[in-house]
Amino acid sequence: MNFNYYMPTKILFGPGKLNELANETFPGKKALIVISAGNSVKKNGYLNRLESILTNKEIEYVLFDKILPNPIKSHVMEGADLAKKENCDFVIGLGGGSSIDSAKSIAVMAKNPGDYWDYICGGSGKGMPVENGALPIVAITTTAGTGTEADPWTVITKEDTNEKIGFGCQYTFPVLSVVDPELMLTVPEHLTAYQGFDALFHSTEGFIANVANPVSDVYALKSIELIANYLPICVKDGNNIEARTQVALANTLSGFVESTSSCTSEHSMEHALSANHPKLPHGAGLIMLSEAYYTFFASKVPDRFIAMAKAMGVDVDSLPEEERPMSFVKALIKLQEDCGVHNLRMSSYGIEKEDIPVLAENARRTMGGLFEVDPYTLSLKETVEIMYKAYK
Amino acid sequence: MNFNYYMPTKILFGPGKLNELANETFPGKKALIVISAGNSVKKNGYLNRLESILTNKEIEYVLFDKILPNPIKSHVMEGADLAKKENCDFVIGLGGGSSIDSAKSIAVMAKNPGDYWDYICGGSGKGMPVENGALPIVAITTTAGTGTEADPWTVITKEDTNEKIGFGCQYTFPVLSVVDPELMLTVPEHLTAYQGFDALFHSTEGFIANVANPVSDVYALKSIELIANYLPICVKDGNNIEARTQVALANTLSGFVESTSSCTSEHSMEHALSANHPKLPHGAGLIMLSEAYYTFFASKVPDRFIAMAKAMGVDVDSLPEEERPMSFVKALIKLQEDCGVHNLRMSSYGIEKEDIPVLAENARRTMGGLFEVDPYTLSLKETVEIMYKAYK
Ligand SMILES: [Zn+2]
Ligand SMILES: [Zn+2]
Repeated sequence: MNFNYYMPTKILFGPGKLNELANETFPGKKALIVISAGNSVKKNGYLNRLESILTNKEIEYVLFDKILPNPIKSHVMEGADLAKKENCDFVIGLGGGSSIDSAKSIAVMAKNPGDYWDYICGGSGKGMPVENGALPIVAITTTAGTGTEADPWTVITKEDTNEKIGFGCQYTFPVLSVVDPELMLTVPEHLTAYQGFDALFHSTEGFIANVANPVSDVYALKSIELIANYLPICVKDGNNIEARTQVALANTLSGFVESTSSCTSEHSMEHALSANHPKLPHGAGLIMLSEAYYTFFASKVPDRFIAMAKAMGVDVDSLPEEERPMSFVKALIKLQEDCGVHNLRMSSYGIEKEDIPVLAENARRTMGGLFEVDPYTLSLKETVEIMYKAYK
Repeated sequence: MNFNYYMPTKILFGPGKLNELANETFPGKKALIVISAGNSVKKNGYLNRLESILTNKEIEYVLFDKILPNPIKSHVMEGADLAKKENCDFVIGLGGGSSIDSAKSIAVMAKNPGDYWDYICGGSGKGMPVENGALPIVAITTTAGTGTEADPWTVITKEDTNEKIGFGCQYTFPVLSVVDPELMLTVPEHLTAYQGFDALFHSTEGFIANVANPVSDVYALKSIELIANYLPICVKDGNNIEARTQVALANTLSGFVESTSSCTSEHSMEHALSANHPKLPHGAGLIMLSEAYYTFFASKVPDRFIAMAKAMGVDVDSLPEEERPMSFVKALIKLQEDCGVHNLRMSSYGIEKEDIPVLAENARRTMGGLFEVDPYTLSLKETVEIMYKAYK
């Protein structure tokens, strides 16, 4: 019952909220707008809408449109150089988690010297303190997955060493975030599922983490409940605005969980997979790991699993006591079936079974911190075992 | 499903957390410490502990120790003058809600011209905007009642007109709050009960308010559950640190509710009572009003009442449908009995039955805004009726 609470981001939540951004005070006079190298925020008109709002408020802007689905360090450095050269005094991330995460990292490097990896803890990062703060960050999310609009975290890959490491500090909370489910209606079926499960796992990991607390718990259980109820609807009917809104809320709540508790080693393991196989979507990697991962932990913290099963709608009381913890895992598999993502295979993304020990070692070296908040301390052998079980 | 979320305060929560204040960065170099005119924070050593922390960090401070249980405007103005004269660059409120609320109002007046009532909306307030922000505020709460450590609100009485009006803006969120249940062990039985019910009503009002949203709802239901389970224990055994901690958590969550939803007209009515009868504790006034108030609204928003009954532990499903909403009110009365506060009478505090119409009118004139967020719009006649029913 000892914890610190800090989530200073102002969040505009709900269908149509992008329009209300026009009524907000922006944290500067010239923005660097960070978007993906893909075409969707342009094609869907989101970029145009943002540009009109900025123009009406006489805020200048520069566009940086190179971000990859698994964002890389060289783009962080390039974006930061552009922000400095153009004298941008704040950064707007518009898009999915990759664009917003990149906006956060760019905001740090626009105000601090050296290389981004100087500030990273873990792997070959130097773990230096961020002395100069960061440019203020505005986040406009077009997906419901990473929760990054409501947490300080950014995940970037160092492409030459295949290290994919999360980073965050008090300066990398967005000052202002827009979560407008109308912007999410165009997300395709499979990405809707991957992102929804990413949000789910932020909440489930944050719920079993040894740093979980009563505040993160209420966010986590509500988020789990909403995803269980509404993600299958979103996947089947992407235009269902109510379901999109509920999943968007679940995702924002999962960001609150990440701000107040922590992800666990499931995320370290997944980062090792997708850092080495950049075509593997983060959410898909988590889904592949999840049955083995949660099966392993079910016996370690059974009460937590029972609470999560209840949140997923399982009638736990009607089950024999010994089956209750694993009923969460069964509900999880059922949810994956309902969302059409129960047959994902690592082998489809070029991951070889014999790579597992090296990937497990990469997970522990680059993001060892998350292993420390697991509710049970995994050995390397157990890490490898979980990943082997997850392999197909 | 449209709402804005903003609760930027960093909160250190848990037994012993006051000591950790020593590790935090303070928002200035010279503090105005605001405490009550009573003796408790001195006698219990809390002031000494704060002073040592400040001295160790080479932060200067000035003491302002005049705050009354129902804090008044003249003390706000006097404290602000002292802060200006002494060049204080931040304000620390140490104590119950009255000290922290006063610290917030002083922080505003230390940076803005004119009279505090110039900035008040409602009653004879002029509703002017707070142009210059406020000094940063640190809150150290020694009670579990107002939730003020986790919201922007401050309630001050204008003593010459008997107007007791809430005020808050983006600048009146504390930047840093300490909620250390060890500081609450010395709160006497009856105040523990009054304050606990104040917290409860912040959550129940915020749950039935027409601006309630899914985020405020999760806070409210958890807070209601914790108070139902732990307040009677706190009242009976003030030294029970676990129960004190759970009620402190409930109170902080009720502050989150006030930050993300709103109080309703129950608070307007109570403010009219205690503004005119300053010896009436705020929580006691709310308790006196509550049975009549919630009985009136039970039929207006039955689903909300059923959810609150469940949070209080009522086995709602076993009841006939028509009894479910009122089962919340029954549980509320039972909780008041368990806490020894079911027989409070307005007449004991000098309130006359024939004053009710004037008091109802005062409530609507000074804090009419809260009537606008009621789930049903009360007429003056209905307001009077509720207050008559509550009178004994
Ligand atoms: Zn993730
Ligand atoms: Zn109150």
